[in-house]
Amino acid sequence: MKNKYLALLFMTLFMGQVCIAQTNQTPIVEDFKPSTVNQPGQEYPQVNSQGYARFRVAAPQAQNVVVSLGLGGAKGGTPLTKTDDGSWMGTTAGPMDEGFHYYHLTIDGGVFNDPGALNFYGSVRWESGIEIPAHDKDFYALKDVPHGNVQQVLFPSKSTDTSRRAFIYTPPGYGKDTKKRYPVLYLQHGWGEDETAWSNQGHANLIMDNMIADGKIKPFIIVMTYGMTNEVKFGKIRSFDIKPFQTVLIEELIPYVDVNFRTLANQSNRAMAGLSMGGMETQTITLARPDVFSYYALLSGGTYKPEEIKGKANPKLIFISCGSRENPDGVKNAVADLNAAGIKAVSYVSENTAHEFLTWRRSLRELAPLLFK
Amino acid sequence: MKNKYLALLFMTLFMGQVCIAQTNQTPIVEDFKPSTVNQPGQEYPQVNSQGYARFRVAAPQAQNVVVSLGLGGAKGGTPLTKTDDGSWMGTTAGPMDEGFHYYHLTIDGGVFNDPGALNFYGSVRWESGIEIPAHDKDFYALKDVPHGNVQQVLFPSKSTDTSRRAFIYTPPGYGKDTKKRYPVLYLQHGWGEDETAWSNQGHANLIMDNMIADGKIKPFIIVMTYGMTNEVKFGKIRSFDIKPFQTVLIEELIPYVDVNFRTLANQSNRAMAGLSMGGMETQTITLARPDVFSYYALLSGGTYKPEEIKGKANPKLIFISCGSRENPDGVKNAVADLNAAGIKAVSYVSENTAHEFLTWRRSLRELAPLLFK
Repeated sequence: MKNKYLALLFMTLFMGQVCIAQTNQTPIVEDFKPSTVNQPGQEYPQVNSQGYARFRVAAPQAQNVVVSLGLGGAKGGTPLTKTDDGSWMGTTAGPMDEGFHYYHLTIDGGVFNDPGALNFYGSVRWESGIEIPAHDKDFYALKDVPHGNVQQVLFPSKSTDTSRRAFIYTPPGYGKDTKKRYPVLYLQHGWGEDETAWSNQGHANLIMDNMIADGKIKPFIIVMTYGMTNEVKFGKIRSFDIKPFQTVLIEELIPYVDVNFRTLANQSNRAMAGLSMGGMETQTITLARPDVFSYYALLSGGTYKPEEIKGKANPKLIFISCGSRENPDGVKNAVADLNAAGIKAVSYVSENTAHEFLTWRRSLRELAPLLFK
Repeated sequence: MKNKYLALLFMTLFMGQVCIAQTNQTPIVEDFKPSTVNQPGQEYPQVNSQGYARFRVAAPQAQNVVVSLGLGGAKGGTPLTKTDDGSWMGTTAGPMDEGFHYYHLTIDGGVFNDPGALNFYGSVRWESGIEIPAHDKDFYALKDVPHGNVQQVLFPSKSTDTSRRAFIYTPPGYGKDTKKRYPVLYLQHGWGEDETAWSNQGHANLIMDNMIADGKIKPFIIVMTYGMTNEVKFGKIRSFDIKPFQTVLIEELIPYVDVNFRTLANQSNRAMAGLSMGGMETQTITLARPDVFSYYALLSGGTYKPEEIKGKANPKLIFISCGSRENPDGVKNAVADLNAAGIKAVSYVSENTAHEFLTWRRSLRELAPLLFK
């Protein structure tokens, strides 16, 4: 079990660092616009309609500036070139995959963030982010629809002797009708990320708001908390042990949420899902505590085998997804095996995406309508 | 009126950039510890018991690295020196004031954040932050007490044709007792900051949690939203006009909050406060709409004159504060004038602090028990 974790965790690490871009010899279209996740008023980084990313960084006396995104150099990344005005500029060698990517700058041998971009917690640090507009970006856009809230909750955790943080999405109208109760999805981030990821990088709240406004789903609550305990936040992945997190989630967070939010506090109205390492956590915890959740979802985070479920757990639905650049056959085959064994399971493959957030945004969009039927 | 704004706004800018440190010839005590607002697992920047800050930045091929904090160089700031292992190190020339400071690095002529520190929105960008532990830091510490939540709200704004963001603090127990209603404080940030400042830099939620746990205040809601409209977020301060924000606040946000939160929706249970530019906004809006708020508070953000109040507004209380390194006499004299005119007013001066967040954390601590009596 431990080796399986490590293998998958390192796959996550590896895929997080190698950005998949396609080399492409068609001319670059000069319609670059600022990335939608730039800091206020910042012109760079920019993205064009083909998905190329262009960077501009002011550092007049620097010797060397490289962006970790793209395929430009021998080691990957996009080397920037000094221009006459003292800034460094460069464009990725090919278009990037649609969606969100983490990146950073290496300036004279040191790692820094791009001052033009907003920061997102990934790779165990606040990294720069860039958004390549996806053809289907509408489903996670901020629109003029009723919006739910995302609230920071500090809940007491005796097992870790700390106040721990969760972010909780409550659907539109939650504050108005103070009698209505809702099902709950517990939704986990990946390795190197934290409890901010599903809102900041994933736009989980906007995906929900839009689907609720479209009448595609019934409203539910989403709870997002940090999926590691103690020092693992600091990168010590070898010492990762899921049991302390299982205790936090099952013994501390769920009871806290059920007291402080208007939940339907029972197994049939509770789901767990996670991406990458969060998928592995979901797999382990749902099987260890089959009495707690009724819906299980693994997003680029492993599979279930029929023998792990049969006679041991009775989920209403299992959902397994990944990007087409990951292991789609593995996902489809796992779901076929589950279905053959009489277990209700659904697969989803995100087209032309890898182990990145567009895969998971789309996975949440596909998962949400299947929950709490 | 416009010139007065500009003068105060530029004062804000100026004081935000010059960090007040005292030169000090006593030996530096080698008890440096990582700043409490470092990124997870990061050893630097560090702070010692005297308030000196020490920086360490890896950039082996850089020519020049300067920290904008401290008084080391001709232009201010702390120049770092290259060490044998390729990292750059340096210590401020003297102890820093207690509390929170923004800073950034200048590396080979470019402005970047310190990869060791968390980022905070100030100076119209996400800046690095460092915390010099204050002797009274206990009042804003994260403690094992019941915690309120801070929720991100996206509210519709017809006047600006956008979904605008507010963060709303609800006190401990808000989710449990779904009948209780609360007074509301509308609390504004300063220029170059945004709606994240009072929670991230100010710890407004922890200050409230601790005072509620100690029985020092009755619980109330705090609403924090972005105090500018349109492109001013991008630094175009010369075009600043308060009216669009007044419309957002009075016509859009307050009604939204009163519908979606369990407020006591009347003038006597509504307060407005702000720091620096937010104080100027508070002054203007409370006087323009004396029917809306009953408590007015200016934190390092101007004063009221008796003739502005008498016969025009009837506040239950005016609170005016600043740091001792700002203009304490101006604050005290203004409050004396108000009291002499029969207007209930209270002043507060934060000892040994300037135009920075420890002044405002302390001001909130002093203000909160005076509200909603």
